[in-house]
Amino acid sequence: MTSVPARHPLSVDDFQSRLHKIGEERYHHRHPFHLLMHEGKLTRGQLQAWALNRYYYQSRIPIKDSIILSRSTDANLRRAWRKRIADHDGDGSQVGGIERWLALAEATGLSRERVRSESEVLPGVRYAVDAYLNLVRHGTMVEAIASSLTELFAGRLISLRVDRLREHYPWMRTGLGYFEARLVQAPEDSTFALDWVLRHALTAEQQDQAANALRTKCDILWAQLDALHFAYVEPAWPPPGAFRV
Amino acid sequence: MTSVPARHPLSVDDFQSRLHKIGEERYHHRHPFHLLMHEGKLTRGQLQAWALNRYYYQSRIPIKDSIILSRSTDANLRRAWRKRIADHDGDGSQVGGIERWLALAEATGLSRERVRSESEVLPGVRYAVDAYLNLVRHGTMVEAIASSLTELFAGRLISLRVDRLREHYPWMRTGLGYFEARLVQAPEDSTFALDWVLRHALTAEQQDQAANALRTKCDILWAQLDALHFAYVEPAWPPPGAFRV
Repeated sequence: MTSVPARHPLSVDDFQSRLHKIGEERYHHRHPFHLLMHEGKLTRGQLQAWALNRYYYQSRIPIKDSIILSRSTDANLRRAWRKRIADHDGDGSQVGGIERWLALAEATGLSRERVRSESEVLPGVRYAVDAYLNLVRHGTMVEAIASSLTELFAGRLISLRVDRLREHYPWMRTGLGYFEARLVQAPEDSTFALDWVLRHALTAEQQDQAANALRTKCDILWAQLDALHFAYVEPAWPPPGAFRV
Repeated sequence: MTSVPARHPLSVDDFQSRLHKIGEERYHHRHPFHLLMHEGKLTRGQLQAWALNRYYYQSRIPIKDSIILSRSTDANLRRAWRKRIADHDGDGSQVGGIERWLALAEATGLSRERVRSESEVLPGVRYAVDAYLNLVRHGTMVEAIASSLTELFAGRLISLRVDRLREHYPWMRTGLGYFEARLVQAPEDSTFALDWVLRHALTAEQQDQAANALRTKCDILWAQLDALHFAYVEPAWPPPGAFRV
């Protein structure tokens, strides 16, 4: 009988490279819907569909972060993570990301009541976002935290998007505050989350968990755009009850 | 066949009276352990046992509040409720309630490491606190919010306690910051929570839910003191592994 050799964890550098490679291959900066957006090829109605559906994702982010808070007995983690909820919900002195996303939706010509009602969200978007909440609720803490690491890749995408939205859809200019805030917030958040994952995913198995959670999160972002593309670009078949362009 | 007559909800005033009556009858200001504390009849060791065990409750409060955040799709509720987590966990500029409770435990002569380890907590205290988390996690939102309404009764108890601790246990004087902060925080919190419950518990059934949740929460506070009294006052039988006076 031979024993199974123990797997060694990757070095910190190799583990980071593994995480970054996932982003390069699977983050939604490569999704055709985003490529069309950045080439100026989406109609106002398609951008409305995007803003309305992505609101559902935005609205669940503070819930996702509250689940992480509620699962942690580490006050240091809670203190750092609380910032994310404030960033999205705002406080007395500053509006939050949800409010900024509503401003973006309004810039596309939608009423905020219509967007906030969430009644015209695509089922496919809803399932993907709810899968994110379930991952964070039922996975390990390494999985819950690592699933946020898509923020590592957000900066480049958002910079490009802000330029291209300004260029191709100048009527959206008043709605870009969300992205401008995220350009500051996302790097702060991902620095903390990456450091946490590097310090807590120490075994080969935990590194696998973190990498798989990040991949799953990339899938979740991608699936939302698949649903949008199918419903509003090609073949452009929105299901019954969904937003109509 | 006669139909069952529909139950009418109480008026807002009567509903408030019902909630206050629960506090008068069942809040832990009446518990013999607290009475002994306030009469100066507890030993330093018994106060240590209290501080060490109640730390477990304190440490779970921001988790409880994060569960409530994670269950709410109402950004207004989340914004108001977030304050509670900041009050307990602190932030860059201000220490939080957990830290203040550790200072109280240190004033009794315990090391913070010993308290934070949670290794000597009474099982009965642990079960009661965990029951609180389960109530907030699995109950309705009315139950989750109403269970916080013990704060309505906290002000009077804390004022009395601060006076009596100063009088009878002057060596604890450096540890009273927790209570002094709660004297400001608890009324703010209970005002919001009571208003929320009055606006959301509109049917007779919802009023029952709120009242039962408040009663359950009183039981949870009471049960912690029962466990302390049994282990450290009479018959003074701490179970294996628990803190020893």
